[in-house]
Amino acid sequence: MEEAGKKFHIVVLGAGFAGLTFCKTFRHPNARITLVDRTNHHLFQPLLYQVATCALSATDVAQPVRGILSNRPDITVLLDKATGFDLAQKKVFLEKSALDYDYLVLALGGHTGYFGHHEWEQFAPGLKTLDDALRLRSRILLAFEKAEMETNPVEHDRLMTIVVVGGGPTGVELAGSFAELTRTVMNLDFRRIDPAQAHVILLEGGPRILSHLPASLSEKAKWQLIHLGVNVKTDTQVKSIREGVVELANGKIINAGNIVWAAGVASTPLTKKLGCELDRGGRVKVAPDLSVPGHPEIFAIGDMALVLKADGKPVPGVSPAAMQMGKHVAKIIKAELNARANPPTRPPFKYWDKGTMATIGRSAAVAQIGKLKLSGYPAWLAWLFVHLIFLVGFRNRTAVLFQWAYSYFSNRRSARIITHQTQEVEED
Amino acid sequence: MEEAGKKFHIVVLGAGFAGLTFCKTFRHPNARITLVDRTNHHLFQPLLYQVATCALSATDVAQPVRGILSNRPDITVLLDKATGFDLAQKKVFLEKSALDYDYLVLALGGHTGYFGHHEWEQFAPGLKTLDDALRLRSRILLAFEKAEMETNPVEHDRLMTIVVVGGGPTGVELAGSFAELTRTVMNLDFRRIDPAQAHVILLEGGPRILSHLPASLSEKAKWQLIHLGVNVKTDTQVKSIREGVVELANGKIINAGNIVWAAGVASTPLTKKLGCELDRGGRVKVAPDLSVPGHPEIFAIGDMALVLKADGKPVPGVSPAAMQMGKHVAKIIKAELNARANPPTRPPFKYWDKGTMATIGRSAAVAQIGKLKLSGYPAWLAWLFVHLIFLVGFRNRTAVLFQWAYSYFSNRRSARIITHQTQEVEED
Repeated sequence: MEEAGKKFHIVVLGAGFAGLTFCKTFRHPNARITLVDRTNHHLFQPLLYQVATCALSATDVAQPVRGILSNRPDITVLLDKATGFDLAQKKVFLEKSALDYDYLVLALGGHTGYFGHHEWEQFAPGLKTLDDALRLRSRILLAFEKAEMETNPVEHDRLMTIVVVGGGPTGVELAGSFAELTRTVMNLDFRRIDPAQAHVILLEGGPRILSHLPASLSEKAKWQLIHLGVNVKTDTQVKSIREGVVELANGKIINAGNIVWAAGVASTPLTKKLGCELDRGGRVKVAPDLSVPGHPEIFAIGDMALVLKADGKPVPGVSPAAMQMGKHVAKIIKAELNARANPPTRPPFKYWDKGTMATIGRSAAVAQIGKLKLSGYPAWLAWLFVHLIFLVGFRNRTAVLFQWAYSYFSNRRSARIITHQTQEVEED
Repeated sequence: MEEAGKKFHIVVLGAGFAGLTFCKTFRHPNARITLVDRTNHHLFQPLLYQVATCALSATDVAQPVRGILSNRPDITVLLDKATGFDLAQKKVFLEKSALDYDYLVLALGGHTGYFGHHEWEQFAPGLKTLDDALRLRSRILLAFEKAEMETNPVEHDRLMTIVVVGGGPTGVELAGSFAELTRTVMNLDFRRIDPAQAHVILLEGGPRILSHLPASLSEKAKWQLIHLGVNVKTDTQVKSIREGVVELANGKIINAGNIVWAAGVASTPLTKKLGCELDRGGRVKVAPDLSVPGHPEIFAIGDMALVLKADGKPVPGVSPAAMQMGKHVAKIIKAELNARANPPTRPPFKYWDKGTMATIGRSAAVAQIGKLKLSGYPAWLAWLFVHLIFLVGFRNRTAVLFQWAYSYFSNRRSARIITHQTQEVEED
């Protein structure tokens, strides 16, 4: 491992918040990094729902990974996908090649999980990638176009119904943004249908939405959603989903032109190949230093790691946590490379909770920062400010600010563009 | 036709420059319009090549048609596609319905034409729609990603070769923009390959590129392209195209990771169903008033019409010509609705040539405005100014200006995002 002139090789899988923060934080004269991602861009996932609801364009929330790291000759970026490991040989297999590593940083994020009902995915797609968002945007816009040409009022109703399954932050943000889209943006644009009559239904299995926030904020969020026109149904479990139909546990049937799944997060199936303990969602139960038990040279960070806080609850799957984990691992590896002969004891990871927030719509949000609870306009301003600060790159920040200002003052959304059209509309 | 209370129905097919300008110009208390388009957006086609070359995002060059016309309750927009006519019954058939018309305005634009070699399309796609541009962008970016992982130097060369067929404005703009992309934007982003070594080859069958401009400007454009690193081959005919291979008439073979077709424009096959005289490209040989001979109630405008100027040459297929035609027909129909009993003689269409320009790269362009010939920086400034003025909508104008300023000063392009990925990369 320690030949003269040979650099330590750190392989990072995933260019999300965790992996990218590691790469940006870690730099050592004796090390080189290979960063592997399935896409060519870092995605600002907290704003992905705004692409699906026509408020932002794809390029506003994505940045080319190579561009972000172009000033780092010690980092090689590969567009590829990990398929397995040889842990004894310290080797990771990709689709197109294999890499030997000295350290391996797993930061593959989360996938949409269907609680074992994979067959629902085709009828109720999730929202994890840029293509997911662009397809959802096109499907919602197409449903309204079809409704405009439809004469059957029952079919009208079905096409203009959007069901969002899951009352977590993504579900709440999607439902609120869809309601605004139909009520304040598209409301003047059709002649036969009235988009303001669209049904946006949010289904939550538990007793309240945003269950990670205090009950009082959940309640405020619910009322803000209802005010926007969302039909919020708590204590409502889904029994089955098929083409255009959601069947509830209570036997009721909802016919919907679009069904969006925002209920479950599962880790990549790759974690099963690590031979370590996983939680129900497939997340790696990491050691306090974030390493994979039994493999001090392998770390799992971000949404694919299960880390427990001092109070026994898991660290939430949010971007600040992922970034903190990336920094933590960078610090550990740096310290070990600096003192190979006598490596220092690894410190445990400590999550610093900067607060939690969810936006609901124009001037509507809820936020908890320490003991401070905000809702409505002040929470929305805080949300705006935090999201702009954390957007990677000057260009995206300025572009997003401009789009938001434009939408706020004009009640228009610029990204109402149907693409990915080949499957839907025949070419001649 | 003229019942009391019944409004005249004008059906417009196509929401490009011609059809949209007609709609925006025409307004009459006794008339209503139905505008039919296959997509939900008006496309600013002159800048489409910038989406393909990562300089602009899709939403910068497209605007939802419904949004543009939301303040026009007399206009109904339908997302549909015309399939045929019953000219005697004044009926147009769409895929999902049929419409009766009093006036029919055909503004369906141009398609990519392959001079009878439709089998080339799959290997050398054209650039007409937003999806074309997004797919091309992804394919070019993916080719460089593959090259970075490739060890075979011959395959390197192939993947990093882009052939653009056709030396008209689109071909010249694409080739220049690709050369810039590889040489000044991506040049620092790879570790194994050097994108600045990419080959961008522009093939033109005739003796000079931009043949619609004076010979001196063609020559200047050629030198500006060569300066950017484009290999310009005039008098070079294509014999055949297959997967990754262009065979020239002189027997030479070019292996290329990406082949783009910018050579031919053909009209929609629908023109054949009009039973009137067409030119070789399928364009309608319209009467001087732009009506379809034998059918004063049907007009053909924009790229699908062949209109001869006083000098016997055809009016070029550019957006100012399309817009002028839209305005001309609006004026004719308005005059006839105002004087039903005694309709005035229709004036012939006169094309007002405002000048022609093509951009080649950063600070590089050629332009002819009347007798004035510009090249280099002044031509580029003129091009910039004209394109910003004509962009539909305040938001797009501001967003495009911002993107351009950002790219100009940072040498970065923000839209280097690979989407439409499902076909290329397997999901797990």
